[in-house]
Amino acid sequence: MGAESVIFDMDGVLYRGKEAIEGAAEAVNSLSGAGKRVFFLTNNGSKTRKYFHKFLEERGFECGLEQVYSTSYGTGKYIREKFPGKTVYALNIGMREELEAQGINCVDGEGAGVVVAGLDRKLTYEKLSIAFRALLNGAEFIASNDDPMYPVEEGFLPGAGAIVSALAYSTGKKPFVIGKPHRLMLDIIVEEQGLKEDAAVMVGDKLETDIMMAKKEGMRSILVLTGVTTKADAAESPIKPDAVIDSIKDVPKIIEGWDEG
Amino acid sequence: MGAESVIFDMDGVLYRGKEAIEGAAEAVNSLSGAGKRVFFLTNNGSKTRKYFHKFLEERGFECGLEQVYSTSYGTGKYIREKFPGKTVYALNIGMREELEAQGINCVDGEGAGVVVAGLDRKLTYEKLSIAFRALLNGAEFIASNDDPMYPVEEGFLPGAGAIVSALAYSTGKKPFVIGKPHRLMLDIIVEEQGLKEDAAVMVGDKLETDIMMAKKEGMRSILVLTGVTTKADAAESPIKPDAVIDSIKDVPKIIEGWDEG
Repeated sequence: MGAESVIFDMDGVLYRGKEAIEGAAEAVNSLSGAGKRVFFLTNNGSKTRKYFHKFLEERGFECGLEQVYSTSYGTGKYIREKFPGKTVYALNIGMREELEAQGINCVDGEGAGVVVAGLDRKLTYEKLSIAFRALLNGAEFIASNDDPMYPVEEGFLPGAGAIVSALAYSTGKKPFVIGKPHRLMLDIIVEEQGLKEDAAVMVGDKLETDIMMAKKEGMRSILVLTGVTTKADAAESPIKPDAVIDSIKDVPKIIEGWDEG
Repeated sequence: MGAESVIFDMDGVLYRGKEAIEGAAEAVNSLSGAGKRVFFLTNNGSKTRKYFHKFLEERGFECGLEQVYSTSYGTGKYIREKFPGKTVYALNIGMREELEAQGINCVDGEGAGVVVAGLDRKLTYEKLSIAFRALLNGAEFIASNDDPMYPVEEGFLPGAGAIVSALAYSTGKKPFVIGKPHRLMLDIIVEEQGLKEDAAVMVGDKLETDIMMAKKEGMRSILVLTGVTTKADAAESPIKPDAVIDSIKDVPKIIEGWDEG
């Protein structure tokens, strides 16, 4: 089947830190121009959905808000469905803003009914302790994602998984994980957009999240080497994308080939 | 064999937070008075050995500095033996003070040759990132201990293990662990004090550290229920101490019974 939709991971694929990757906007926009439905899907839950939309627009990616899927958005949707009325303690302020924008009651203290952990560059021991105590008191445990690390301009930084792991280890509790490679964000796109997995292509930089999810869910996948995964990693890994490319510039050509083939 | 030596875990056994547990000093001092050799062994590496000595003296425990064993002391000793000349990044300032007091060169940056992780109530994302990057750059990874939590006056707080787990998960590296239930601290007491395990009793509040170490190393053990472990935990656990008591006050009587029996 030809590709109707293309889902782009964001960090390490479209940009690195705050800088757009060369040729990314042109490649993405040309797919939209050729009639493909384009979606943006990030495991990052440390900012609001609106923030990510503006961030993409400012770097030349043509898109509407409804095409942008962050785990902050997915976390809010999940909490409203599964735990309506419960108060939430979110470590990260951007996550909290998104949840509040969705009408969820966020609190500061240990009395929260739900703890949302994820990447938090303002993490302190005190915030960790508040989350820890809420969990010991019986709060639900949600993780925006469990990525070990993420790429920035000058290398890597500890990912959401570092903070999630600290809470899971200290409390003995296992979180429900919103982000890739888990299915929830894809479920949301299917529900809201009528996405068909077998007519969709996933473009990402991480074997363990982007490509793993695509393989599990019957999507074709393209790995770009501008983020976390190196050529050597890709060669050694049992997780095999349908294509591996150095630059996102080649994505339209590959998809065109699949459409014709 | 009668008990020649008694090793006391500290936090949750002799005190909780800053407050001495009732009757603890009297019980410990009476054992010293009866000719037992008494040692103090804490997994806490967030303060210097001198600090812990002063802390015990101020709460009425009669002891010399050489009887007090903290993982900060053990970490310094281990680094001097295994990695002489390497620079060290210690997350915790008390650990750093102990290492510097032992003549070890501590640094602030990512260029460190050894990372020492442990409990750090001043933890920030930035400090986590410095340790993470040093580890990715090839630094040795040492953990003062891997306790999930520790008791304070008003409940529990995340332990060293939370922070160690964050670094282990994000870097994919496994630390060498100094504290109980691992053997290193006991090795140091054996080496420095001529301790004989089969003539020693371990008194602790944690099944997974204090009692586990005692069982592995052929020491008798007494669990006190003033810390992390509850009566129900003790009943369910496969780790079985030789005695379980509500209060440290009963330790001298139990040991006397063993000496006579």
